[in-house]
Amino acid sequence: MSSEDEQLPPRSVDRPRVEKAIREILIAIGEDPDRDGLLKTPERVARAYEEQFAGLGQKPGDVLTTVFEADHEEMVLVKDIELYSTCEHHLVPFYGVAHVGYIPGADGRITGLSKLARLVDVYARRPQVQERLTGQVSDAIMGHLQPRGVIVVIEAEHLCMTMRGVRKPGAKTVTSAVRGIFRSSDRTRSEAMSLILDRR
Amino acid sequence: MSSEDEQLPPRSVDRPRVEKAIREILIAIGEDPDRDGLLKTPERVARAYEEQFAGLGQKPGDVLTTVFEADHEEMVLVKDIELYSTCEHHLVPFYGVAHVGYIPGADGRITGLSKLARLVDVYARRPQVQERLTGQVSDAIMGHLQPRGVIVVIEAEHLCMTMRGVRKPGAKTVTSAVRGIFRSSDRTRSEAMSLILDRR
Ligand SMILES: Nc1nc2c([nH]c(=O)n2[C@@H]2O[C@H](COP(=O)(O)OP(=O)(O)OP(=O)(O)O)[C@@H](O)[C@H]2O)c(=O)[nH]1
Ligand SMILES: Nc1nc2c([nH]c(=O)n2[C@@H]2O[C@H](COP(=O)(O)OP(=O)(O)OP(=O)(O)O)[C@@H](O)[C@H]2O)c(=O)[nH]1
Repeated sequence: MSSEDEQLPPRSVDRPRVEKAIREILIAIGEDPDRDGLLKTPERVARAYEEQFAGLGQKPGDVLTTVFEADHEEMVLVKDIELYSTCEHHLVPFYGVAHVGYIPGADGRITGLSKLARLVDVYARRPQVQERLTGQVSDAIMGHLQPRGVIVVIEAEHLCMTMRGVRKPGAKTVTSAVRGIFRSSDRTRSEAMSLILDRR
Repeated sequence: MSSEDEQLPPRSVDRPRVEKAIREILIAIGEDPDRDGLLKTPERVARAYEEQFAGLGQKPGDVLTTVFEADHEEMVLVKDIELYSTCEHHLVPFYGVAHVGYIPGADGRITGLSKLARLVDVYARRPQVQERLTGQVSDAIMGHLQPRGVIVVIEAEHLCMTMRGVRKPGAKTVTSAVRGIFRSSDRTRSEAMSLILDRR
């Protein structure tokens, strides 16, 4: 009901087509696709992509299934959710952690904690840009739980900036998205931020 | 004169061929290659591969150019050389550090320190397996400098083990290769190892 892709049909990876393309790539970079170590690479990459891009076939509603009512009016925050995604510009991984917090709405709807981590994966397992990923996670929670507010912070290292291009190992990209009360109230937002950034 | 690929002609990435294959892959995973964020992806990936696989067009002799004689009989060790390579099984990056040490031979031939780091890159910028990478760096130094011995240790994290498959974030793979006196003398090897593993 919330985000646009709620409408889309589930998609899956066309493995034979990936395999053919990977073989092409091996030849194009000057490798021998028939040497022992590379023989099964097209098949392995195709299977790996099924995992890496599984989110393209999923909707937030697929994982935000367990929704229950609870008399809880304070922020629920899950910190340091391991995150692996793929940079849509260079098709190399970016990885780090996501912190997801929300304050339940008047009706007290909450979801299972693991569902927040699964939701991150739904959007991370796509060709992505970190800012969009951050926003999509927020919007999905807003749409499905109708909470008073959502805050999502993602800290990630982009291999496209470390292994190639400008080559800045260690550089971290931090993005955040706030919705509802986290947007309107400076105090609520800064309280959440200090909980998120607390490194004890 | 040393390793086999010394004979091979330089190779370069066939960019149009990579671009076509990347477009195919985007379609095969269920993406729209014509959406704004992906339009330039095939071109970017092709350029990125030129960097990521540049080693296929290079020989150790291309970088081990500066070789001079010095009256130095002790080990020369360069630690913590940043390393980015590509797993040849899944075509995702693995990254970490390489430690490269050698003891000059009777003729005292040594090379520039930066050349050791460049040599690591020559072999890292190929579809690789960590063990082979470790051995190739050692063999190239043996062949070109004729030292009394070489030791190479690589510690790396494989994204194919963290972002997919068994999913073990933090797992590190350590490989080593010893040649010459580092192989024959337990004491020389263990002294080098303690210098390498020293984390002060
Ligand atoms: N804001 C944002 N930028 C990103 C993300 N991922 C990603 O590659 N970029 C940036 O996208 C831009 C693509 O630029 P470009 O079209 O000039 O491609 P390029 O490969 O030549 O750029 P580069 O060599 O500077 O990385 C780069 O600046 C890159 O750092 C992301 O998640 N968020
Ligand atoms: N020794 C060694 N093994 C490696 C390297 N890179 C790499 O992917 N492997 C391993 O190669 C194997 C490929 O196994 P496989 O043919 O069953 O492919 P797979 O994708 O189904 O394996 P997986 O899902 O267990 O990773 C995996 O065990 C993977 O961990 C490396 O550098 N050295």
